[in-house]
Amino acid sequence: MLTQSAYGKSRVRLVTVERAPGRHGVRDLTVNIRFTGRYEESYTEGDNSAVLPTDTMKNTVYALAARDGVAQPEAFGLALARHFLDRNPRLERVRIDVAEQHWDRIPAAADAQGTAFVRRGPETRTAAVQAGRRRTLVGGGVADLVILKTAGSAFAGFLRDEYTTLAETRDRLLATALTATWRYRGADVDFGEASDAIRRALLDAFAAHHSASVQHTLHAMARAALDRAQDTTSIRLVMPNRHHLPVDLTPFGLENRNEIFVPTDEPYGVIEATLVR
Amino acid sequence: MLTQSAYGKSRVRLVTVERAPGRHGVRDLTVNIRFTGRYEESYTEGDNSAVLPTDTMKNTVYALAARDGVAQPEAFGLALARHFLDRNPRLERVRIDVAEQHWDRIPAAADAQGTAFVRRGPETRTAAVQAGRRRTLVGGGVADLVILKTAGSAFAGFLRDEYTTLAETRDRLLATALTATWRYRGADVDFGEASDAIRRALLDAFAAHHSASVQHTLHAMARAALDRAQDTTSIRLVMPNRHHLPVDLTPFGLENRNEIFVPTDEPYGVIEATLVR
Amino acid sequence: MLTQSAYGKSRVRLVTVERAPGRHGVRDLTVNIRFTGRYEESYTEGDNSAVLPTDTMKNTVYALAARDGVAQPEAFGLALARHFLDRNPRLERVRIDVAEQHWDRIPAAADAQGTAFVRRGPETRTAAVQAGRRRTLVGGGVADLVILKTAGSAFAGFLRDEYTTLAETRDRLLATALTATWRYRGADVDFGEASDAIRRALLDAFAAHHSASVQHTLHAMARAALDRAQDTTSIRLVMPNRHHLPVDLTPFGLENRNEIFVPTDEPYGVIEATLVR
Amino acid sequence: MLTQSAYGKSRVRLVTVERAPGRHGVRDLTVNIRFTGRYEESYTEGDNSAVLPTDTMKNTVYALAARDGVAQPEAFGLALARHFLDRNPRLERVRIDVAEQHWDRIPAAADAQGTAFVRRGPETRTAAVQAGRRRTLVGGGVADLVILKTAGSAFAGFLRDEYTTLAETRDRLLATALTATWRYRGADVDFGEASDAIRRALLDAFAAHHSASVQHTLHAMARAALDRAQDTTSIRLVMPNRHHLPVDLTPFGLENRNEIFVPTDEPYGVIEATLVR
Repeated sequence: MLTQSAYGKSRVRLVTVERAPGRHGVRDLTVNIRFTGRYEESYTEGDNSAVLPTDTMKNTVYALAARDGVAQPEAFGLALARHFLDRNPRLERVRIDVAEQHWDRIPAAADAQGTAFVRRGPETRTAAVQAGRRRTLVGGGVADLVILKTAGSAFAGFLRDEYTTLAETRDRLLATALTATWRYRGADVDFGEASDAIRRALLDAFAAHHSASVQHTLHAMARAALDRAQDTTSIRLVMPNRHHLPVDLTPFGLENRNEIFVPTDEPYGVIEATLVR
Repeated sequence: MLTQSAYGKSRVRLVTVERAPGRHGVRDLTVNIRFTGRYEESYTEGDNSAVLPTDTMKNTVYALAARDGVAQPEAFGLALARHFLDRNPRLERVRIDVAEQHWDRIPAAADAQGTAFVRRGPETRTAAVQAGRRRTLVGGGVADLVILKTAGSAFAGFLRDEYTTLAETRDRLLATALTATWRYRGADVDFGEASDAIRRALLDAFAAHHSASVQHTLHAMARAALDRAQDTTSIRLVMPNRHHLPVDLTPFGLENRNEIFVPTDEPYGVIEATLVR
Repeated sequence: MLTQSAYGKSRVRLVTVERAPGRHGVRDLTVNIRFTGRYEESYTEGDNSAVLPTDTMKNTVYALAARDGVAQPEAFGLALARHFLDRNPRLERVRIDVAEQHWDRIPAAADAQGTAFVRRGPETRTAAVQAGRRRTLVGGGVADLVILKTAGSAFAGFLRDEYTTLAETRDRLLATALTATWRYRGADVDFGEASDAIRRALLDAFAAHHSASVQHTLHAMARAALDRAQDTTSIRLVMPNRHHLPVDLTPFGLENRNEIFVPTDEPYGVIEATLVR
Repeated sequence: MLTQSAYGKSRVRLVTVERAPGRHGVRDLTVNIRFTGRYEESYTEGDNSAVLPTDTMKNTVYALAARDGVAQPEAFGLALARHFLDRNPRLERVRIDVAEQHWDRIPAAADAQGTAFVRRGPETRTAAVQAGRRRTLVGGGVADLVILKTAGSAFAGFLRDEYTTLAETRDRLLATALTATWRYRGADVDFGEASDAIRRALLDAFAAHHSASVQHTLHAMARAALDRAQDTTSIRLVMPNRHHLPVDLTPFGLENRNEIFVPTDEPYGVIEATLVR
């Protein structure tokens, strides 16, 4: 018995250029689309008569971007979701995920500055729209925001068992590649302003917090974000712990005064939590 | 308000060698561990007294592998889950994910054959154990099984709208990187035998099916797997469509008799479904 | 002063299907093309009149594959090289690199077996053609052949200085992702047969060798390959050392009888050498 | 006959923290080391007596960083090269490659600003030292500097043959992930200042240039860099063409006024050249 199914198109890439004289605007989006609905016959009978091809989903991204322009990723996701719901009676829920790559202007001679860009990265801004026949949820986010603090981070007083070898530390490096996703209270929000405010709040809290653990700092960051952005109702943070291990220099007759570290990619801790207002 | 949280260790890598005379056995596992429980104070207060460090989780993987050996990935996951539940009263649910890389023996002169290996890949075998105080779910799977069929695949009769440009086809290439996950009816199953049977059933069905769409073939594969492995209760398949587009050779005065294709990585369709017995 | 330049197209992907009744053949190639010649004006003046677009290079791959078929990667590289040299008077040297992904047949019911495939990997077969007006060099190779031996590998008696902490070992795991490239004595070689013979020789020697170091085994493998394939004139091997470190279990009251290892991705040793007949 | 060999350690990762009160400095380096010398017996005989283990090379990176600090990547590479040449009589040439990841300060409340950082990226700064018994070459560079211009880029007037289908364009998007490497006139250069000046020159020239092709712009950028940084003797640029293809909107009854593009990862053109003063 078929109990769950979904289909869609992933990694539809789109770059738009808005051509004001001497000053262009660039948006660089990657869009994922996912349909859930009454499509059982396509699975069980091979009957495609209700199946909108994923190739058409891709074309729709380009057509809507051309027809109406792309303002905020959340708004573009909403427009796509409504379009698909309007035309596909079998469609019950559609999810649109958008990731935006940032391009900064290259500081250059006046006439070139408006049309040349350098990729900021690896950070992306994200948006997620989940739309059904009755209800629509709009979310924003940031992904791969890689941050590091060299002071104000401890990890001590933890549970020990027979397999515990970790040393306690009052002064360690704390690094992560933050992924945050939040939900807006509705669709009539200034998404750009809210996103910027949350990103700043997350960075401020990370920098200022006296951290007893990743959990502790994650909580402080999530609270700061909800405090700053009243248009949000909840936020979820996922923080992989990018461990930086102090190098043991004693075999070389040297002391490590908490200055020499080896960053390691694996294994890594992962901490996550959701806060609701 | 903190409504959800979890923490754990990811990508704990482990290779074990079983040293029978002249014939070694190798297992190559990557383990992820995830704790859910009453750990709120670590977030809100920075109180780590109930927090088992993720470093200890990693150590436990190596200690249990050394003490008891590693037989099947599912069984190793169960042993880890029970160990953690026994010793951590605040722990409510633990999830252990294991991915196993395959090493085939190198066919070689008799005395070397037993101790030299070549990586089969990119396919991995997976296991997932979700254990709580009352109930334990055990799952198996296969990931990144890249398969292709050059006959018996069509896609036609689909819905069209004003943005549909896709041509119908009665004879296309069908390729995917299959991820399948299934649930066992309990913990007393011959996991190795069941995994092998399901893998063979999935491949057989993929090869033999007259495909009207990815959805159609996915359904046939899932049914074949449940038919073959009576110890499973459900199966979920995710099949990204690795599109192979026929190259238009008419500008060069040549005909493409369905022989020359360009494989594309993005965008790609994704089809998924779950079947329950 | 412009002292060196080159241009070309990379990652031209091509899948061909040869459709014999009931039994199809698949080749899966990725082609890189690189032109070197008298193209200075394109750099200094922006004069494109002698520049064949890289888009045309890509089209040529598809057109030649359609017109003449693809037999061996080396032969396809030679055909492309000759085509470009014939038509581009400014072209002095062209290099064609081809990487072939392997697809094995899925063992299945008789009528489906001939048209369904599973990716073998991550190993690829490679070919490199370097053609000028007077001379053409043809090479073959294998890349990402991941191999491991659990016996017959030592590393001891090495140089020590004040920063040496490595313990000597008489019985370690030896693993690598082998890249081998070899040169053929000419263009009239049975490339498929020679490639297979070299691959087998490399694997046999790796399995059988009593290794004092990666260097030592690399040399034995290269010699075995040249011995086996008389149509080759030289071979180069690059062997990154995929370290497998024995886990220290003494803190857990356990002994590691050379059975429990942690594979590490970085840092890694790299050993390379070229042998000429 | 063994005609060439080399060995070394790759991806030695190092993060250093310089702890001035209230304001920390972070350097994040990845170091590759490669030895060339009279090490034949290690290959042919398995004689390791002259072989410095690659593990010791790794230790040396940490020991020298701890003992002397890390100022500029080029200077650190020089110190490592001299250290290895001094102690290893069989060593004839050593190559040290360093890649530096950039961390920007997080703008935050005054007391936290000095110790919290956000990764800038994907761009890295690179250094390459090639040192022998008689001569030392020092190079700098930048890698993965991803740049885009939306005006001032054409590609027309190119050579056509029977496989050419590319349309001429007077106004396209030009994007690349720039890798530049340059050589300094000696070891007594202000490497930080020179690197910054070259990076700015490359960006300025890219932004301002009226481009007839990637070749044309690459040449202008290389010239600008040599003009700006008198301490360099040569520069090499490699510019993969990250094609942005205008989407054909005519099937949807829409016009593409050069505003809607699909960025593609493969295939891609690659252009490279070296300029010597």
